[in-house]
Amino acid sequence: MNHSFASDNAAPLCPEALRALETANQGAAPSYGDDAVTERAVEAFKELFETDCAVYFVSTGTAANALALSAFCRSHHAIVCHEGAHLQTDECGAPEFFTGGAKLLLVGGAHGKLGPGAVEAVVRRRAGDVHFSKPAALSLTQSTEAGTVYTGEEVAALAEVCRAHGLRLHVDGARFANAVASLDVPPRTLTWEAGVDVLSFGGSKNGMGLSEAVVFFDRDLAKDFEYRRKQAGQLSSKMRFLSAPWPRMLLEGHWLRYARHANAAAARLALGLRGLPGVRVLHPIEANAVFLDLPEEVHEGLSRAWAYHPFEGSGHRFMCSWQTTDAEVQALVTDLGRLAGGEAAHHMR
Amino acid sequence: MNHSFASDNAAPLCPEALRALETANQGAAPSYGDDAVTERAVEAFKELFETDCAVYFVSTGTAANALALSAFCRSHHAIVCHEGAHLQTDECGAPEFFTGGAKLLLVGGAHGKLGPGAVEAVVRRRAGDVHFSKPAALSLTQSTEAGTVYTGEEVAALAEVCRAHGLRLHVDGARFANAVASLDVPPRTLTWEAGVDVLSFGGSKNGMGLSEAVVFFDRDLAKDFEYRRKQAGQLSSKMRFLSAPWPRMLLEGHWLRYARHANAAAARLALGLRGLPGVRVLHPIEANAVFLDLPEEVHEGLSRAWAYHPFEGSGHRFMCSWQTTDAEVQALVTDLGRLAGGEAAHHMR
Amino acid sequence: MNHSFASDNAAPLCPEALRALETANQGAAPSYGDDAVTERAVEAFKELFETDCAVYFVSTGTAANALALSAFCRSHHAIVCHEGAHLQTDECGAPEFFTGGAKLLLVGGAHGKLGPGAVEAVVRRRAGDVHFSKPAALSLTQSTEAGTVYTGEEVAALAEVCRAHGLRLHVDGARFANAVASLDVPPRTLTWEAGVDVLSFGGSKNGMGLSEAVVFFDRDLAKDFEYRRKQAGQLSSKMRFLSAPWPRMLLEGHWLRYARHANAAAARLALGLRGLPGVRVLHPIEANAVFLDLPEEVHEGLSRAWAYHPFEGSGHRFMCSWQTTDAEVQALVTDLGRLAGGEAAHHMR
Amino acid sequence: MNHSFASDNAAPLCPEALRALETANQGAAPSYGDDAVTERAVEAFKELFETDCAVYFVSTGTAANALALSAFCRSHHAIVCHEGAHLQTDECGAPEFFTGGAKLLLVGGAHGKLGPGAVEAVVRRRAGDVHFSKPAALSLTQSTEAGTVYTGEEVAALAEVCRAHGLRLHVDGARFANAVASLDVPPRTLTWEAGVDVLSFGGSKNGMGLSEAVVFFDRDLAKDFEYRRKQAGQLSSKMRFLSAPWPRMLLEGHWLRYARHANAAAARLALGLRGLPGVRVLHPIEANAVFLDLPEEVHEGLSRAWAYHPFEGSGHRFMCSWQTTDAEVQALVTDLGRLAGGEAAHHMR
Repeated sequence: MNHSFASDNAAPLCPEALRALETANQGAAPSYGDDAVTERAVEAFKELFETDCAVYFVSTGTAANALALSAFCRSHHAIVCHEGAHLQTDECGAPEFFTGGAKLLLVGGAHGKLGPGAVEAVVRRRAGDVHFSKPAALSLTQSTEAGTVYTGEEVAALAEVCRAHGLRLHVDGARFANAVASLDVPPRTLTWEAGVDVLSFGGSKNGMGLSEAVVFFDRDLAKDFEYRRKQAGQLSSKMRFLSAPWPRMLLEGHWLRYARHANAAAARLALGLRGLPGVRVLHPIEANAVFLDLPEEVHEGLSRAWAYHPFEGSGHRFMCSWQTTDAEVQALVTDLGRLAGGEAAHHMR
Repeated sequence: MNHSFASDNAAPLCPEALRALETANQGAAPSYGDDAVTERAVEAFKELFETDCAVYFVSTGTAANALALSAFCRSHHAIVCHEGAHLQTDECGAPEFFTGGAKLLLVGGAHGKLGPGAVEAVVRRRAGDVHFSKPAALSLTQSTEAGTVYTGEEVAALAEVCRAHGLRLHVDGARFANAVASLDVPPRTLTWEAGVDVLSFGGSKNGMGLSEAVVFFDRDLAKDFEYRRKQAGQLSSKMRFLSAPWPRMLLEGHWLRYARHANAAAARLALGLRGLPGVRVLHPIEANAVFLDLPEEVHEGLSRAWAYHPFEGSGHRFMCSWQTTDAEVQALVTDLGRLAGGEAAHHMR
Repeated sequence: MNHSFASDNAAPLCPEALRALETANQGAAPSYGDDAVTERAVEAFKELFETDCAVYFVSTGTAANALALSAFCRSHHAIVCHEGAHLQTDECGAPEFFTGGAKLLLVGGAHGKLGPGAVEAVVRRRAGDVHFSKPAALSLTQSTEAGTVYTGEEVAALAEVCRAHGLRLHVDGARFANAVASLDVPPRTLTWEAGVDVLSFGGSKNGMGLSEAVVFFDRDLAKDFEYRRKQAGQLSSKMRFLSAPWPRMLLEGHWLRYARHANAAAARLALGLRGLPGVRVLHPIEANAVFLDLPEEVHEGLSRAWAYHPFEGSGHRFMCSWQTTDAEVQALVTDLGRLAGGEAAHHMR
Repeated sequence: MNHSFASDNAAPLCPEALRALETANQGAAPSYGDDAVTERAVEAFKELFETDCAVYFVSTGTAANALALSAFCRSHHAIVCHEGAHLQTDECGAPEFFTGGAKLLLVGGAHGKLGPGAVEAVVRRRAGDVHFSKPAALSLTQSTEAGTVYTGEEVAALAEVCRAHGLRLHVDGARFANAVASLDVPPRTLTWEAGVDVLSFGGSKNGMGLSEAVVFFDRDLAKDFEYRRKQAGQLSSKMRFLSAPWPRMLLEGHWLRYARHANAAAARLALGLRGLPGVRVLHPIEANAVFLDLPEEVHEGLSRAWAYHPFEGSGHRFMCSWQTTDAEVQALVTDLGRLAGGEAAHHMR
């Protein structure tokens, strides 16, 4: 079974991340994040985002999202998000757990994206009614679970709704790198300049190991966050091993290079499938995911050799990573072409 | 500032653990723990403990303890532990958070150890009174925060109190390896044979990176634990990097070798301090920690060059690790000898 | 502004309930529920349900529902309920709070009712997937928020789905009396005989003051419930004032008499509206609620004199209580008739 | 068994409270606190305290305390209180539950009272250390669990420590009336003038039924409190029955009259015991409680006829209420005198 397209977290660490771990593995160092390696990593984020943000490393994306939201969402609050948001569909109630009982308010939207009108409608619906959880945050995913991206303008429009209604804006950036690579803008354009308060910046899907960064652009929200991280079991004693890869990845540009690579692989995959009978691309290819509607018999055959994920109502997902090779894309296209009885493979030559 | 004695988690990864990470870093693999490396790691625990236990890897000791306890402790429960337990003094309320509000019931005891009589007294005190949190767990630390160990008989005596009163027995084994090394018994003797229900087995302080294992000897307690781990943000997508070091460490014996090394360094340090005027060893040296009562001026001088931790009412802690060298021990002894005005260093020759 | 149709909890205590409070108000009595009055009230439930149930009094319906569910739902669980369930729409996240983060899984269904097929589908959807909250309970409302009722057979069919998938069955019976009155069956038929595990039996809407009863038909689920009630701030010191009305209400039949009265008022109201131009009854009238689709101008006029509640997508709700008089029904019908320009009032004569 | 001295919540409602309930029981009224009776009750508090406070009624003292604290204490916080505080000893972990995991930091102090030095010491001990819960509140009990009172100056001294360290000051005033009666000062003197941020004002022990008032003197802390009360199952639908007694009790002076009565009964009881062999009064009699150290055989005999509570390390508690009669005091003194073999009863004449 080939797992190359199962998820971008199926890939190993990229060489630069691994080297950074090895380099950091020298002698005794202060534990719990009071070390020089971690300090350097925090600085790298400030440089990348061109602002004085507060940065905290945690071990999973679920923890990054839920902890970040818990910084300002309490049990009586609601968190607005897309009905297909990872927050809702794949975190086993982590936002509810970390906040002690906040409710997710689900909003629909084509291709995994939220629009300001739909967000405002759900926020207004029960405004001021103490019988219903009070909206306190909007969380959007960038790039989205459907492989699409929000432009800076789109983020800003959502941020405006947030400001108007007293919500804070969180971005689940498990694949933030892919969005930046897709839009080719400075990271600040998609974050604090657009009104984002806090970002979960994913390391794992970008080629690192277990490290995710919670980046507060509004430092006031980070008050006591260190306590919350500790209490939630996310203050690693050997923190340098979570923080070490970041400076190299961010400042030498590997984060963006790899994201571009993954995005390009997805584009190439989609291109290879054009015209395949019965195979339909379900969402615009703007990042590193390709969602396909497959004829049942094609899926049956394909899933014997390739691991990929079915998404309720959204077909099957093929995810590219920093490591996806042209050969793998070609092999997948070939198999699909063969099973679909088409000549798709020819498109690639 | 030399951090070699600050904590055993100030040390880097041991070579075997690092090599295991590098070896595991090959190609795409199923994420979230469904990979062969993780399966092998789980098997390694079963082999080590000679029983069919349920094993889960998490990223910190705090998460290991709090999650393990939350498997069977709910908000209305109480968890009995030593007043100096890490659970109480250094986890920022993690047990309370993960259980949604359980109360820690603190018990005193010389040298960081709990006795069955004191435990039974606190359990009986409000038994059946709905106005007070109901004891549901006893958590002991092995080796203890004071650097001492419980024998298998001592654990069994505590387990008996647990059984008599409907409590489950948890062991915080952040330094479990040091206890096994100290007592030179099979791991089973200190765990399931003695009545332990669940163990937090520490990897970090034993020479690994971020990995801790939650080991349920009573598999019934592990029901739904996978959900709880996920919800708590502890299901790592690239799980193989948490699990990879364990098979090598456990099955090739490095875990025990390194623990013995750390214990021996502590013993050597204590030996070197014998007769130093004003310097008093506060607890028996049974594992890898040395607690010293230091004259104020000695502490003032020493703390300029060496990092170590003051413990309320327990003097200063010097902790040895898998990496502590004889030269470091000698250098610390020499400095202490010089500052204490004695000739302690001579004892070592 | 007339509040008679705003809600059945707008009504005062019925005379029998008030008399019971006065009678119980004699001399000193053991506090926290250890009194004879409370004992008698518990016995009254056993007699009514013809079974040995465990009964606990709390002060609100929200507490009754959320506490009952928290007895067996933990933070990683999901609770299946109707998308219009009070649990979801009007408890400000209480189920999430009391369980520490459980997720509500919403299911649609005509007229506020759940069907076994829809429930089974949502339970199966992510079965065994640790990335999503695990269904542990089904909660249905009886009579429903739409003023309809489940027959014993319908409850049993849902209970069968629960059994097949390891869920427990909770009934939000804030208006349980109205359902029993509507179906004219023994209470056991709609509860334990049909497979219900725990019932929130509403006193407030049935004519009592602040008292709701949590009734566990499966006594095993009630283990430790007394601790949970205390911790949740629901163990009243002067418990007799919560429990006193129940024996009179239940054993002298006032609960059922008043529920019949309220149901009859709703039926009469619906009858009076027949043929009113533009006024449409939205749900079958099976209990004490009438949901109307009103022309905007009718609503505008009517809401100047009468308090009633708009329900998203379900028109306007007019709720009858133990105290609703024929004159009030007639006055409302007359006003509606006048505003709708019809001759509806005539129907009543 | 006579329960008159078991607790002040063993007493029934006083006539004024009962009359107020009966008076409020007229016709339909808006539910959930939007009624005129509740509005009047809120105004009564503003008048009593001579300030614009925010007032919320809940059904138990445990809920009042825990909800009030949860308004500004989160899971990573600590709440400083006396080791004998009701919060710690008799609420089954409610503060931990409502805050999602805050830790109680226990401080000793003679006669149930906290001193500023001891409070400051515990707050400073781990200040700034993210490995330990961050103190965010001080909670003192007024009158205390030992039947003593804090003067306004004593409260102000504690408030100063709070201000210096960023803590908010909560008062558990389950017996606030008894403190005011004892010190004979305006209520403002013991609350906002002394720096109290929020008060749990007890109705139940003062002669009312189930009603406790949470009074925020710092209105900023009350932001969103209505949501939290609802989510916690404490927003009663028939709120008027919680609020109705307050205006009469507060504005007609019954609250103070009854508290004086209870205090006087305690004083009279203590006086009657003077010189009884082996019977020792353990705490100053400043409110309505008398704590006695009793010879074992006296306790054995006495407890056959009288209900009273043993307190760990504090002897036996005899609590007087609004209803305690001279005859009951005399009867208790007589029994004690007989059992202790002394002539104590004579002292009363």
